[in-house]
Amino acid sequence: MTRRAHPERGFALPVRIYWEDTDAGGIVFYANYLKFFERARTEWLRSLGIEQSRLRESARGIFVVGETSLRYHRAARLDDELLVTAEVEEIGRASLIIAQRAYLRDSKGPPDVAGALLCEGTIRIGWVDDRTLKPARIPPTLLEALKT
Amino acid sequence: MTRRAHPERGFALPVRIYWEDTDAGGIVFYANYLKFFERARTEWLRSLGIEQSRLRESARGIFVVGETSLRYHRAARLDDELLVTAEVEEIGRASLIIAQRAYLRDSKGPPDVAGALLCEGTIRIGWVDDRTLKPARIPPTLLEALKT
Amino acid sequence: MTRRAHPERGFALPVRIYWEDTDAGGIVFYANYLKFFERARTEWLRSLGIEQSRLRESARGIFVVGETSLRYHRAARLDDELLVTAEVEEIGRASLIIAQRAYLRDSKGPPDVAGALLCEGTIRIGWVDDRTLKPARIPPTLLEALKT
Amino acid sequence: MTRRAHPERGFALPVRIYWEDTDAGGIVFYANYLKFFERARTEWLRSLGIEQSRLRESARGIFVVGETSLRYHRAARLDDELLVTAEVEEIGRASLIIAQRAYLRDSKGPPDVAGALLCEGTIRIGWVDDRTLKPARIPPTLLEALKT
Repeated sequence: MTRRAHPERGFALPVRIYWEDTDAGGIVFYANYLKFFERARTEWLRSLGIEQSRLRESARGIFVVGETSLRYHRAARLDDELLVTAEVEEIGRASLIIAQRAYLRDSKGPPDVAGALLCEGTIRIGWVDDRTLKPARIPPTLLEALKT
Repeated sequence: MTRRAHPERGFALPVRIYWEDTDAGGIVFYANYLKFFERARTEWLRSLGIEQSRLRESARGIFVVGETSLRYHRAARLDDELLVTAEVEEIGRASLIIAQRAYLRDSKGPPDVAGALLCEGTIRIGWVDDRTLKPARIPPTLLEALKT
Repeated sequence: MTRRAHPERGFALPVRIYWEDTDAGGIVFYANYLKFFERARTEWLRSLGIEQSRLRESARGIFVVGETSLRYHRAARLDDELLVTAEVEEIGRASLIIAQRAYLRDSKGPPDVAGALLCEGTIRIGWVDDRTLKPARIPPTLLEALKT
Repeated sequence: MTRRAHPERGFALPVRIYWEDTDAGGIVFYANYLKFFERARTEWLRSLGIEQSRLRESARGIFVVGETSLRYHRAARLDDELLVTAEVEEIGRASLIIAQRAYLRDSKGPPDVAGALLCEGTIRIGWVDDRTLKPARIPPTLLEALKT
């Protein structure tokens, strides 16, 4: 996957819209923005050197989503290309709030330039023990990587 | 689909958890609660005599989701049975706010008794023209059915 | 979930079509029939007293899909109700072949009468150790339940 | 999306595995390979100058899947990167058969080198009128692009 820098926001992942993403209204099914946001968070974490499957093995923890809040502004359609951003809004000891946005990519401009805002929201993710699913402190190395 | 009355809340749809609903964390993938909530809204509307595909043909409009806000309390797992509720929180001229909850069904109690609260949230849905996707006034007959 | 007997085939699960199941072609996204078939297999197993999550704990094994072969005859749409069947075609020591069909439910007839055939196929499922994912012999009690 | 040439097969799309793709077995949910194959077919068509949403507007037709046949060899997991290929196996007047494969990308080798074969299959797609969904002749320009 290519990771292109979004001019104003730091991190942005391009996401292409396929048949699987659409519904009979002819537009992207709204629940799928949570998937696009997840993909962007994952690639943003990877860009910070954090790979969740390895982290699970080494630190025996996983991130779980505790709260999502999304606003939908405009619809996307088949074959559209989106730019999806992720940035830290708040860092706590056991959880994070990530602000995310999905833009329609401007097909006439350079590949890293975003057009209309389609959807925006915040995702609160908590760090939990991967067996008990109980909240735990985010490992210090992870916390430091996130603070950069 | 059976529609069982939920004692305290009026409408509740039973939803079974299948492999498709889970993720590698061993629990239900959080984005899927938006699907469960959608299913419950649809069956709740159907219980009021409103069928969305017919409505689209007769009134040339569809509901689109404008805002979602969800809080996750506990995880559900493969083979669990949920009870998912839907009730009107606010009715406007062009949009509605629906409050929804997913409970773990208490397997020892009667089929309509809910156990632990897993996820709750509000969904704002707007009524739009089905071609232009522009906001429109909710048809009066629909509005009346919702107010009952 | 209600389990209604299908007149000719023994087991049939009703499946309602929601927005999540459709695509921008206005019809059910073809990959979703694999989900409907999985739901029907799961409920058919449950009707034989087999619950996969308990089986995993007791026998430390899970079913994995090894081969799928589907033919699509007609499209389903939003709000349609399907009847999805499952029946054993072949039983081996480490794998099974299940024949499955999805019918449009005839909305004018009684609830257990199937209309047009939408999709049919066979699914080969193997029994594997739930940690190593290596093929294993199907537990005898499971085999006997399947043979009835 | 990057399109990297697959050494032996011509076209290959890299597909990253996210939480949304996995199930409680800890592996990729088998139905999702149909999505990965669809993404690869779409990007392969795009590489031939064919964009399905434009084609729908100009030729009033869409591709629909008529038959799928998949064999699963090995499981993929969270954070894996796959290479998914697509190549024509047969071209008729109203339908095509596409052969597809998903490989685990070899993380130590160059980005376009495939490792273990995970899943392979054939997809028969038919060309239909986008309103009636009835079979129609594939437009000549489309046919020629496919034959190259």
